[in-house]
Amino acid sequence: MGNEIEIYNAPLPRATDIDSANKRISEYVKQTPLLTCATLNDLSGASLVFKCENLQKAGSFKYRGATNAILKLTSLQASKGVCTHSSGNHAQALALAAKTKSIAAYIVMPGNAPRVKVDAVKGYNGNITFCEPTLQARESTLEKVRKETGAEFIHPYNNINVIEGQATCFYELLQQLKTAPDYVITPVGGGGLLSGTILTSRYFAPRTKVIGAEPIMANDAWQSLKAGTFIPSENPQTIADGLKTSLGSLTWPVIRDNVYDILAVSEESIINAMYLVWERMKIVIEPSAAVPLAAVLENKELFRNKKVAVVFSGGNTDLKNLPWN
Amino acid sequence: MGNEIEIYNAPLPRATDIDSANKRISEYVKQTPLLTCATLNDLSGASLVFKCENLQKAGSFKYRGATNAILKLTSLQASKGVCTHSSGNHAQALALAAKTKSIAAYIVMPGNAPRVKVDAVKGYNGNITFCEPTLQARESTLEKVRKETGAEFIHPYNNINVIEGQATCFYELLQQLKTAPDYVITPVGGGGLLSGTILTSRYFAPRTKVIGAEPIMANDAWQSLKAGTFIPSENPQTIADGLKTSLGSLTWPVIRDNVYDILAVSEESIINAMYLVWERMKIVIEPSAAVPLAAVLENKELFRNKKVAVVFSGGNTDLKNLPWN
Repeated sequence: MGNEIEIYNAPLPRATDIDSANKRISEYVKQTPLLTCATLNDLSGASLVFKCENLQKAGSFKYRGATNAILKLTSLQASKGVCTHSSGNHAQALALAAKTKSIAAYIVMPGNAPRVKVDAVKGYNGNITFCEPTLQARESTLEKVRKETGAEFIHPYNNINVIEGQATCFYELLQQLKTAPDYVITPVGGGGLLSGTILTSRYFAPRTKVIGAEPIMANDAWQSLKAGTFIPSENPQTIADGLKTSLGSLTWPVIRDNVYDILAVSEESIINAMYLVWERMKIVIEPSAAVPLAAVLENKELFRNKKVAVVFSGGNTDLKNLPWN
Repeated sequence: MGNEIEIYNAPLPRATDIDSANKRISEYVKQTPLLTCATLNDLSGASLVFKCENLQKAGSFKYRGATNAILKLTSLQASKGVCTHSSGNHAQALALAAKTKSIAAYIVMPGNAPRVKVDAVKGYNGNITFCEPTLQARESTLEKVRKETGAEFIHPYNNINVIEGQATCFYELLQQLKTAPDYVITPVGGGGLLSGTILTSRYFAPRTKVIGAEPIMANDAWQSLKAGTFIPSENPQTIADGLKTSLGSLTWPVIRDNVYDILAVSEESIINAMYLVWERMKIVIEPSAAVPLAAVLENKELFRNKKVAVVFSGGNTDLKNLPWN
């Protein structure tokens, strides 16, 4: 494992690119804390450290990738703004990152998006265009917005600058932790965070095994890995709303060739893990962010006595509609 | 303001005592993070830093005082254990601090204490004796337990070692923040945290103004300060259950002579501040911990453009019974 990585369809971020991205975004993103919890160590039999991206600006790690993408725009691109389709954390992250640099953000959201998410994007001055809740409608509406505005499309995960930004999460974790963990485990939806984590691991912590965690109800990454070929999600139903998306053409090959394993967990495990974190660690994580801890607790043998870094990916959830009430 | 403080009925912790306490407890307590929130800065017009004792072990700053008291026991005292009466965070903190040193903890709790609090103390191996929910019953039951066991009584706040431990919260904050804030604001119930904060401020940050915040519905500190004489709480009803207690004979004179002001806030403000913190900062704070932020938001003129340290005192609350549901 050297300082290079195999090139797929597009050039992937190199070690120096990740280091540069970390410097580039450092004055805009939060250095989120690493927390530990004696109760969860006891429960799991592992030594867990939690990277709290739920405490990141805009409430998730997505702010890293969005900020990196925004800061890499040319002046001409910046003058025309950015656009994306998302009902989730990437929309909020991109809107806030754009606002911070006084850049316009055009967000295409399905008409049935939760009101808290719509309000959050509006709060960050995002220009919202609503569409039918289908992928086709999202893409055609986005294309229309893009043509009208000339805005640069920042894909939620299938974008090199976004992946490079997400790679800084584990990079920062390694700087905080001093010694590399035995495992790092992140959620996997579109694969931006997981592929970024893999790149950082290969360059800076090659002995750390990288694991992706997803709901059984949206286990396209697990299915793809077992089949050895990309299998998309088909209308998945899970409480982990951030993990419904399929992998992308950039993220899938990185994951296929480098991930140690994909672990899939039940809905009940996700809710239990989420509740445990709120109750014992006193922090708010969203269902998607609870998936890696659920995977640790469902696979105790694998992690016993190991040092495991767990990424809490985000904290955006409706406080008035909690799964245990 | 020098390195001494006026002595009242009992010798108060000196600067060297607080420094020693900080060293003594450092391997047992968490160095809790300081967090910031752009939204709350915008809302308040102040520059706020939040000391997250909700992320402390046992879920509150009380673990500092309890740990300091436990570590200062003689071997003979330790062999007989500790006892207290509390239905709240001190009970959990003392039980866990005692367990950590393999010392017995006897906790007297009212029979109507919330089940989550009873379960937490049991989870820390505390020996619970239930009593009638009156101060008289608590004191007589405690006296009985003390006689039977020979355990050392660790009062929740009217105890020098406990106050010394609570003083380390602001001491640690000062070390993290590098420059002293214009204001530090803590909740005030029995006054252990507030008087400890005052002592640390006088010794190590004499220009920082110390403010106590309490519910209007339990404003014994405000009343006492205005009257210039100790006025106890009388059956207060507030959602901030940790702040119902009256000041103590040790804490009241320190507060009387040194506090910059006591600010009292409405129940509605407390719930609003609590919700804001959960929603925007993604951390779980209990109602009592929201009281200082509520005071900042109710008194914007006082804090405008000032650097204000706000202590989030604890995070122990029933997730299945939230005030906004």
